[in-house]
Amino acid sequence: MKNKVNVAIIGLGQIGIYLYNELIKKKKDIEKKTGKKIQVVAISAKNKKKKRRFKIDKKIFYSNPFKIFKDHKIDILFESIGLSDGVSKKVVELALRNKTNVITPNKALIAKHGDYLAKLAEKNKVNLEFEASVAGGIPILRTIKEGLATNKISKVYGILNGTTNYILSEMENNNETFDKVLQKAQKLGYAEPGNPKLDLNGFDAFAKIRILSALSFNAKISKNKCIMEGIENIKLEDIKIANQLGLRVKLLGISKIINGRLFETVHPCLVNKNSYIGNVNGVMNAVITEGKPVGESVLQGEGAGPGPTSSSLLSDLLSILRGNIKYPFGISSIKRKSIKAFNNDNYTNSLYLRFEVNDKQGVLSLITNRLAKYKISVKRIIQTPDKKNKKATIVIITHKTTEINAKNCLTIFKKNKNVLKFPTLIRLYN
Amino acid sequence: MKNKVNVAIIGLGQIGIYLYNELIKKKKDIEKKTGKKIQVVAISAKNKKKKRRFKIDKKIFYSNPFKIFKDHKIDILFESIGLSDGVSKKVVELALRNKTNVITPNKALIAKHGDYLAKLAEKNKVNLEFEASVAGGIPILRTIKEGLATNKISKVYGILNGTTNYILSEMENNNETFDKVLQKAQKLGYAEPGNPKLDLNGFDAFAKIRILSALSFNAKISKNKCIMEGIENIKLEDIKIANQLGLRVKLLGISKIINGRLFETVHPCLVNKNSYIGNVNGVMNAVITEGKPVGESVLQGEGAGPGPTSSSLLSDLLSILRGNIKYPFGISSIKRKSIKAFNNDNYTNSLYLRFEVNDKQGVLSLITNRLAKYKISVKRIIQTPDKKNKKATIVIITHKTTEINAKNCLTIFKKNKNVLKFPTLIRLYN
Repeated sequence: MKNKVNVAIIGLGQIGIYLYNELIKKKKDIEKKTGKKIQVVAISAKNKKKKRRFKIDKKIFYSNPFKIFKDHKIDILFESIGLSDGVSKKVVELALRNKTNVITPNKALIAKHGDYLAKLAEKNKVNLEFEASVAGGIPILRTIKEGLATNKISKVYGILNGTTNYILSEMENNNETFDKVLQKAQKLGYAEPGNPKLDLNGFDAFAKIRILSALSFNAKISKNKCIMEGIENIKLEDIKIANQLGLRVKLLGISKIINGRLFETVHPCLVNKNSYIGNVNGVMNAVITEGKPVGESVLQGEGAGPGPTSSSLLSDLLSILRGNIKYPFGISSIKRKSIKAFNNDNYTNSLYLRFEVNDKQGVLSLITNRLAKYKISVKRIIQTPDKKNKKATIVIITHKTTEINAKNCLTIFKKNKNVLKFPTLIRLYN
Repeated sequence: MKNKVNVAIIGLGQIGIYLYNELIKKKKDIEKKTGKKIQVVAISAKNKKKKRRFKIDKKIFYSNPFKIFKDHKIDILFESIGLSDGVSKKVVELALRNKTNVITPNKALIAKHGDYLAKLAEKNKVNLEFEASVAGGIPILRTIKEGLATNKISKVYGILNGTTNYILSEMENNNETFDKVLQKAQKLGYAEPGNPKLDLNGFDAFAKIRILSALSFNAKISKNKCIMEGIENIKLEDIKIANQLGLRVKLLGISKIINGRLFETVHPCLVNKNSYIGNVNGVMNAVITEGKPVGESVLQGEGAGPGPTSSSLLSDLLSILRGNIKYPFGISSIKRKSIKAFNNDNYTNSLYLRFEVNDKQGVLSLITNRLAKYKISVKRIIQTPDKKNKKATIVIITHKTTEINAKNCLTIFKKNKNVLKFPTLIRLYN
């Protein structure tokens, strides 16, 4: 790469504008570390006049990002619009074809089109880097691609979404309902004000798990059908009962190889309060890898926000400026294989089941008989009567059972008049 | 680098022999990831006939490591003898001069001669990599050099020695004395059977802190005089009392910039039992960096042993095979500055002081008066009488005070007949 490097930023939302300011502030530091002079020659966003956190140079502003490539030879493009398709995909495609290196924090784009875009980057001999797409400031992708490069990784899991982790922590700490904490999170900017759905329903964490799987197992990004559950159905009550049992609810993303098959999932888990993962609270993220020979490695840090994200974007920048041409997924695209999917029905866990029932004789035995029929054995029962309303809460912790068994067993409770709601199921982490 | 790569390993101790076996086992995997075929063409150790964990190819064995360079063009040398000088230094020098890349887990060598050897590597345009020298399998050096490259790091600290952390954990968990646990650690291979001194007295952790400082602050390796204390004087009693106070003893390495000055230290600390660092137990290591904009980053993993160490050595190998020529300390040697030392006398902490005294009237007031004279104010006193022997244990937790103050204050107790031993001092982590 020549000594003067032209940079463009597409998308000036929270991340993009912060990055823009950092690039200007750290120009000298970057030159000291790499010997390269960077110059932001173009920026693009929908609205030129929008009030932003930092002032922009309007002379280099483009309403149409595609026009940038006509006016400039761009060496490095930052894409921070964040769509899985549309402009995000088109501009990245155009850049790679023009032999422009691309850096993006866009997990939706990479989880959906990463394989295709990686191939395109390799064909054009440029870099496509996306460290910031997973776990904000934690350099987990670089760690898997380089630091743990020759390990055989068998499992990668963790807390991958700061918004939901914040909500769960606050519910527990302040004894507040989901809805109330969600409002607070939106006020603080931790959750999208308009549409927090992609955080809450597990989709965001799931995109990250897909990327982590591909890197950890040298595989193509899987398109397998997976169990994906968010935290929308976690009630304050569950958190309180968990607490009494020495447990805590965490939304975990998990990816592992079971008998040569790939299993990926995102769902709430009950973890031990004294465990490491049980103590990653608030907006923190943590990623744990299990590999040979290295053993268990833990990386923890702030998972979101412009500061941490920009730290990762700049680490990608430095890597490119130092002249390291790398495969986007650590190895060449043609060597990345597809791994067959593990059958989700056989996923096995101890379960936490909460039943809201009429406080009548025979209801408990109805439940335990049904469980017994499906060979789900009970480890613990906590029955809390609500005498006034003639209701009761029955919490059952089961021994290990499969998904399919649990599913089949529970169906009957959809239509039983003494079981007031379909039971809440939370898997215990093992 | 050409497609066939000649590798030599000097030193076939625990680490060297494990690495040798890994290189042979993972040849194909390495080729898949880098396109390079590696060939171990020479190995060297003192004793050809020694019984080792894995079988060696005696045809490539050298008793004299220097002879290897006459017979072969070595592309990459692994130095795993582990001396700070002597053969280790000489063979690394010779290799770099011969334009051979060097990879080493030798923290003593790097902490002492890292600046000089880095310059030599840069001059000869080869790599000198030492990821395995700090925190075993945790890719912390790569993370600082690359993942956090553009952050302004202000502090790096952590648990850097697995042996001492194991000993402290076992003393607490099993209620066993230091000596007893040390014996067990030696049996399990966690502590050197002959001479565990360099682990126990803090020297090993200190070498690592020097390396971390240099990388975190883009500085030369400091030669400052520092506070270095090990765990030899930690008694089971201290651990028990700490436990009652909600605290736990950890040997921490700490490096930070205070008002533009560099402060480095290794000493036992009392940390909160509920804190993150208070829950890194057994042989685990953890390194925490504080930087802007990334915030706090935590890396945790197995800190020692052939498996984790070899994981880091191979990550260095892959980095070199992928053709990344890098500055050993992230930036060019000429750009690394010296940072003036912070005055250790001004290091400020709350203190835990344990006095063993004769249970006589006036002894407590003698102690508190002395503390008052040095303006060391008391936060908490726990006095435990031992009626039978007419003795007592007095534990005092102080408010913050400086090193020099504490030192001057405590001198008098060297010669007081009612104070039976010089008081034990453990700093509280803040």
